Amino acid sequence: MSDDNKPVLKVGVAGLGTVGGGVIKILRDNAALLTQRSGRAMAVTAVSARNRRVDRGFSFDGLTWHDDPVDLAADPNVDVVVELIGGSDGPALLLAQAALKEGKPFVTANKALIARHGEALSALAVEQDAPLRFEAAVAGGIPIIKALSEGLSANTIDRVYAILNGTCNYILSVMEETGAPFEDILADAQKLGYAEADPTFDVDGIDTAHKLAILSSVAFGASLNMDAMFTEGIRHITPHDITFAGELGYKIKLMGVSTLIDDGVMQRVHPCLVSLETAIAHVNGVNNVVVAEGDPIGQTVYQGPGAGEGPTASAVVADLCDVARGATSPILPPPADVPSTYLGMDGHEARYYVRLTVADEPGVMAAITAALRDEDLSIESLIQRSHAAGEPASVLLVTHETNEMKIRRSMERIGGLDVMAAAPVFIRIENL
Amino acid sequence: MSDDNKPVLKVGVAGLGTVGGGVIKILRDNAALLTQRSGRAMAVTAVSARNRRVDRGFSFDGLTWHDDPVDLAADPNVDVVVELIGGSDGPALLLAQAALKEGKPFVTANKALIARHGEALSALAVEQDAPLRFEAAVAGGIPIIKALSEGLSANTIDRVYAILNGTCNYILSVMEETGAPFEDILADAQKLGYAEADPTFDVDGIDTAHKLAILSSVAFGASLNMDAMFTEGIRHITPHDITFAGELGYKIKLMGVSTLIDDGVMQRVHPCLVSLETAIAHVNGVNNVVVAEGDPIGQTVYQGPGAGEGPTASAVVADLCDVARGATSPILPPPADVPSTYLGMDGHEARYYVRLTVADEPGVMAAITAALRDEDLSIESLIQRSHAAGEPASVLLVTHETNEMKIRRSMERIGGLDVMAAAPVFIRIENL
Repeated sequence: MSDDNKPVLKVGVAGLGTVGGGVIKILRDNAALLTQRSGRAMAVTAVSARNRRVDRGFSFDGLTWHDDPVDLAADPNVDVVVELIGGSDGPALLLAQAALKEGKPFVTANKALIARHGEALSALAVEQDAPLRFEAAVAGGIPIIKALSEGLSANTIDRVYAILNGTCNYILSVMEETGAPFEDILADAQKLGYAEADPTFDVDGIDTAHKLAILSSVAFGASLNMDAMFTEGIRHITPHDITFAGELGYKIKLMGVSTLIDDGVMQRVHPCLVSLETAIAHVNGVNNVVVAEGDPIGQTVYQGPGAGEGPTASAVVADLCDVARGATSPILPPPADVPSTYLGMDGHEARYYVRLTVADEPGVMAAITAALRDEDLSIESLIQRSHAAGEPASVLLVTHETNEMKIRRSMERIGGLDVMAAAPVFIRIENL
Repeated sequence: MSDDNKPVLKVGVAGLGTVGGGVIKILRDNAALLTQRSGRAMAVTAVSARNRRVDRGFSFDGLTWHDDPVDLAADPNVDVVVELIGGSDGPALLLAQAALKEGKPFVTANKALIARHGEALSALAVEQDAPLRFEAAVAGGIPIIKALSEGLSANTIDRVYAILNGTCNYILSVMEETGAPFEDILADAQKLGYAEADPTFDVDGIDTAHKLAILSSVAFGASLNMDAMFTEGIRHITPHDITFAGELGYKIKLMGVSTLIDDGVMQRVHPCLVSLETAIAHVNGVNNVVVAEGDPIGQTVYQGPGAGEGPTASAVVADLCDVARGATSPILPPPADVPSTYLGMDGHEARYYVRLTVADEPGVMAAITAALRDEDLSIESLIQRSHAAGEPASVLLVTHETNEMKIRRSMERIGGLDVMAAAPVFIRIENL
């Protein structure tokens, strides 16, 4: 509760990009509200960024400037360190280690840092009795880390699935709307600032993988394991796939899915066909959504803006409020006994959507269906779409439930057939 | 963090219905998980219920039994009191007061208690430096109180709207599916245990109103005001309305909507037409959903089971975990300066759906449209549906945006026309 005798919580901010500016703005503009809600006044006292001369649209009067962010940790005028530099190593990691070693609370929006070093940092936080918070690292403004680690504390969570990358969700949504191919929409998204100049982290699923690894650990109490993660991006998805998925009653979404199976965890990031009957299918554009399933709660769904200055800064400041309220524990639990094993994709079971681009000539269907039969793959539905004479045709099919090994073997076999005009494409159908 | 030296948190539970049983079950079955997550072991040490002899399916060995629930507050072997008795007054209120006066944390699932006495209890909690928690009182298993009060602390929230009553949402969903009238589905729901023998609290919107008053207060920092609440239930909704709404692109949902307008709060509970384009339109059956809008976050959506043993017990235990972690502040903030005024419905502006049941005779449309014109009500669309000859016909219309006063006046005027075969029905169209 509000206590006028509590000293002001002095905040040091490293990294003054749009999120850093947003954090400083919220702490200044909403000061009275934040004091009321957290019971303690907060103020930025020190900052660090690469270039001191950039006009950031707000005043640094009265703030200590540190050229080296790591110096924020030792500044006696800083009670809590906010890291918004980015990158899994380098200054961000050095600052995290330095702050926690000083016993100072550490708040970050850095998913790569937490996905790669969260467990070691968490152990250090426990040792030093200092909070380690990273609400902003996953799903931007959605308070999902708090929901999983506190709101659902009473539950055994056994599945978390989510749309965690706004750039990919935006690209897939626009592909559906316009029918334009991936490369064109990516180029437009880069011009609009929705995608980075180097889009690898987003479109190849790495950003989603970082966030999913964090969610798995928080939800299951599993050790954080960014390496035991199947990761596939969206570069191979065509508007054709999206249209056909729609006809079958599905949307295509880049998802992160983490499942607790017996005593193992399976983490996978890849495009999925999700039924139009699910809420997640209707989350479009740059929004994120996280679905958590457990016992006794059943299913809960959390949706909101996944990125951007305001939402990310909102999550950082929520963490600061927790620190102001006296939070001590780090959010990442020490790994629980149960889900210690990470499972590969080999055991994954699903129905699969398959697109085959084939020469428009007699005997094609016979060759394909024979190959499928030989791999014991059973077909739920199949459509052949002819194009202009002489152009390759498309064979689109949906398998009955099978497993990842079988589908890979049959795709390899089919890929080797003379009649194939391009490599086979398959997309997993998610059973939600 | 986990501290083996912390003494066990001793829990006293008043009320041993399904939720009480669920709480005891979770605390026993998930003991290791809860200790890991909250850093402190918890155990039920004392209970109270009306009848000691009922077989509740679990053992009371080693627990102290109190015939009077209020005695739990003074029991030196109880550190935190859980109230699951229900009712806004009587033993529930006495127990809350007694526990907080002892400086003991008080956890409740009782929406009526908090909606009616939350502010006084919160003041007592501040005075005694004891936590007051009521996550389970609103939207069952969805951790919405935590999301609003902690996860979104950095934001100025200016609108909260929600489906908060599973019984009404179930009835409306089944009306849509089957076309059966309200009374029949209510009777079935009562047989299935989805509705109470006396359904007033649910179907007349009072349950939703209790929950909305709590959400308003938590979201806006407004004083809790259950009386300044417009409340209308769903008894007058017909399958006909649902079908016509569907043709117009809407679903009918019983919603609670709370808005911060300038320095006033408007709270209203009534059936709404909501666009099929919104996520909330697709929340069917007994599920709940809460949408919170604010600055800088934009819109976030929370969906999950709104009632039932598991979800409600999950929320109660999450509160206990917060207490175990050392939470001190009550969630209800002392009322903020800004939203001190509550606004009535008179200023409400909306488009309205209107159903008029009229005699099937010449001149009807002329009489109705003249009445609308005289009240300066402008029509966006109008359909007349004739039934068998001699039977009353339906006139269904949607107005342009107007206000509550005008619609009420015109409905009164139209209701007085000779051609009317039944009282006019109007439903607000929600602009989401």
